[in-house]
Amino acid sequence: MNSSSSGPAAPPPFAADILIHNALVLTLEPGAAPIPDGYVAIKDGKIAAVGSASCPGPPCQSLPPCHQSLNARGGLVLPGLVNTHAHAAMVWFRGLADDLALKTWLQDVIFPLEAGWLDGDKVYWGTLLAAAEMIRGGITTVAESYFYETEARRALDAAGLRAVAAQGVVDFPAPGVPETRDNLRVAADFLDSGGDCEPLRITSTIFCHSPYTCGPETLQRAKALTRERGLPLFIHLAETRQEVEAMQQQQGCTSAVYLDRLGVLDELTVAAHGVWLTPGDQDLLARRQVKVSHCPESNLKLAAGVAPVPDLLARGVTVGLGTDGAASNNNLDLFGEMSLAARLHKVWRHDPTVLPAAQAVALATREGARVLGLEGRTGTLAPGKEADLIVVDLHQAHLTPLFDPYSHLVYAARAADVRHVMAAGRWLLRDKGLTTLNWPEIAAHIRQGSRKLGRP
Amino acid sequence: MNSSSSGPAAPPPFAADILIHNALVLTLEPGAAPIPDGYVAIKDGKIAAVGSASCPGPPCQSLPPCHQSLNARGGLVLPGLVNTHAHAAMVWFRGLADDLALKTWLQDVIFPLEAGWLDGDKVYWGTLLAAAEMIRGGITTVAESYFYETEARRALDAAGLRAVAAQGVVDFPAPGVPETRDNLRVAADFLDSGGDCEPLRITSTIFCHSPYTCGPETLQRAKALTRERGLPLFIHLAETRQEVEAMQQQQGCTSAVYLDRLGVLDELTVAAHGVWLTPGDQDLLARRQVKVSHCPESNLKLAAGVAPVPDLLARGVTVGLGTDGAASNNNLDLFGEMSLAARLHKVWRHDPTVLPAAQAVALATREGARVLGLEGRTGTLAPGKEADLIVVDLHQAHLTPLFDPYSHLVYAARAADVRHVMAAGRWLLRDKGLTTLNWPEIAAHIRQGSRKLGRP
Repeated sequence: MNSSSSGPAAPPPFAADILIHNALVLTLEPGAAPIPDGYVAIKDGKIAAVGSASCPGPPCQSLPPCHQSLNARGGLVLPGLVNTHAHAAMVWFRGLADDLALKTWLQDVIFPLEAGWLDGDKVYWGTLLAAAEMIRGGITTVAESYFYETEARRALDAAGLRAVAAQGVVDFPAPGVPETRDNLRVAADFLDSGGDCEPLRITSTIFCHSPYTCGPETLQRAKALTRERGLPLFIHLAETRQEVEAMQQQQGCTSAVYLDRLGVLDELTVAAHGVWLTPGDQDLLARRQVKVSHCPESNLKLAAGVAPVPDLLARGVTVGLGTDGAASNNNLDLFGEMSLAARLHKVWRHDPTVLPAAQAVALATREGARVLGLEGRTGTLAPGKEADLIVVDLHQAHLTPLFDPYSHLVYAARAADVRHVMAAGRWLLRDKGLTTLNWPEIAAHIRQGSRKLGRP
Repeated sequence: MNSSSSGPAAPPPFAADILIHNALVLTLEPGAAPIPDGYVAIKDGKIAAVGSASCPGPPCQSLPPCHQSLNARGGLVLPGLVNTHAHAAMVWFRGLADDLALKTWLQDVIFPLEAGWLDGDKVYWGTLLAAAEMIRGGITTVAESYFYETEARRALDAAGLRAVAAQGVVDFPAPGVPETRDNLRVAADFLDSGGDCEPLRITSTIFCHSPYTCGPETLQRAKALTRERGLPLFIHLAETRQEVEAMQQQQGCTSAVYLDRLGVLDELTVAAHGVWLTPGDQDLLARRQVKVSHCPESNLKLAAGVAPVPDLLARGVTVGLGTDGAASNNNLDLFGEMSLAARLHKVWRHDPTVLPAAQAVALATREGARVLGLEGRTGTLAPGKEADLIVVDLHQAHLTPLFDPYSHLVYAARAADVRHVMAAGRWLLRDKGLTTLNWPEIAAHIRQGSRKLGRP
């Protein structure tokens, strides 16, 4: 459908590149109401206009002129979802070993595979697979942290996703970093080589695995490397009770206080999980403006615990949602995380009014963008922001009738309801078909590669 | 695809009506391993054979002859899911009011609508909508409890679902039962009129809403009516702490003990929720062989609590999964319930080995059938059982790679992955298309009818 087909020969020079119309638009701008008969106009990869016009479609007087249009057919248009914590290439290990004690799972299954089986090529193809799953589920921005991160970043760039790619750092031999002393050099090289990718779309930074796998000097040097470049530093924090208890024994304080003493906590720190944060830790995180990535599906499956998200939100801490890796989740689906987050904290607090639907959608979009420091570019639909958006098909039994689109997104919709996905003004999914990735090729590669995995 | 196309003129008289082949088959028979290169042969609506044959498809020497065949294309074949607790027509109220205190939600929203707006026609169309959603999500058997149950039963029959339809009973004026004194007469009439439907597929019985909304005489008479017919009696039990506390105050015992004193607890009683069952209650339920329907998504959303499912299972209580109604869930998706049940009890018990994936799948199939007393007919794939089965499409990013089909069903798959659904040997869904229901007609009817709902 092109406006030129029934209009004049060429659209005017100010025409939108793409116009999405006939939609119920949720901008996720604070306080904004849903826009019925809504449209979003995109120009040069950015959002040029958001408005309302009840007409059958372009060309019409009420709609901006456009080169290309998409009729959303009454679907829901909202910002692309923001996955604030993932280890993309771990999709290789999806369902390989479940329902085990965390220590058994890590030490008997995951670590040996990462040490002996993983390589850069595996990370590249695994990240492509993860990207395919995330795009299909409406994710347009992902913060991904793993090893061989140059390969992960290459895959995310090829997929067209907006991404924060973080090279993993631990103080022992790691995939792609056999010599521990090289860990920060590899990370620094990774930061400096980011220019190979689309710079506005892909941020390169560092992921210090945790306060117990990185020594104090490593943590401080990683913080210095990222802070001087204005980059977020990712770290797992207070994921398990064991971590917090061991830290208490060894350092006489909580993990959060320990990191603060090292000067690692600031507005450019993203703490994943935060399950066992004490009230004092929560105050500290709020004071330092640390961001938190909440990963409820993984936390439940590993029996890690339930993060004090309502308390963090009450203290003004910025919280986003994350899937974690598919080895511990086992999916990369933020619809599931929204649903679980909204339900879980209600039962945990014995209060059905906790974390209402609209807030859960905000965590998965606007607040996720704030966690990653990308709020100027993505997370809401507002003129000037990058065109990162999704169209959700509402004409389905499980989304009928429709009273409240936020309720449906959180309590009834699924990743499979996403029909179109756009990042930076480029289609990544059209009518449920991937446009940037070759799915048969990825599937064949993964099937072949996974034959050498499997249970002994 | 018909075996006669490349074989002799007519298949032999013992040929299967339908042969599903090229599948990974999970029979859900206790202890049975997944069957690669599997097939299921169906004859006269029942399963005639389950086996393995690595050949490109019928006709071939290793596969039973058949009139019709379906290539599952490497998909997963398993028993149709069993939803042990639903209020189907409440899909009308999906997303109408969420994130409210239970009392506000019930008394200010749901009860007034049920009293002033609901009628038999609404129940019929609402149940058709619910049936469409459930079929798409792989449910072949549903225990549905509501009012105007004759209309609900008619809709379930039309949809081709296997169903236990239970007429709701409360000791105050109810939808379709304006005079309280008529409540058990209406229910008895409902039981006696069941012959209008396919008798092997649709069971008609009674749902006493709860121990606090039905008086002792009503409970005992309903039990007598159902017990003499060998029918299961449904009841909400110990859903909220308020219920249990009020019962303790009024009767000096728990809800379970109260029902037991009335003689209502036996192997033909299905207790929904069971959130606040004490260890003594659990022993009692085990002793009486009461069945329990676990509805975690609803329990969390209403902040009711977490049912002691691992303890019930350890005591040998038969437990199935239920969606509850879409007013409190807000979906009728058992994949979501499997995922949540498997995750929730791990974190609740601080033990990631609790409720492993294969057990969660069993709760949604075989054990659900046992809850409803239908284990002789459905719940596993075994010769002689009714052909209630589903085919799940495995060729998707979020189900790749594949190591353990149970893990994928619970931790990664979604309702939308169901490609084909059969109940009693009849297709209800083929290639994701509904075969027994007219979706555009249902959607139009619901859209029209829901305009008069919506927030004031």
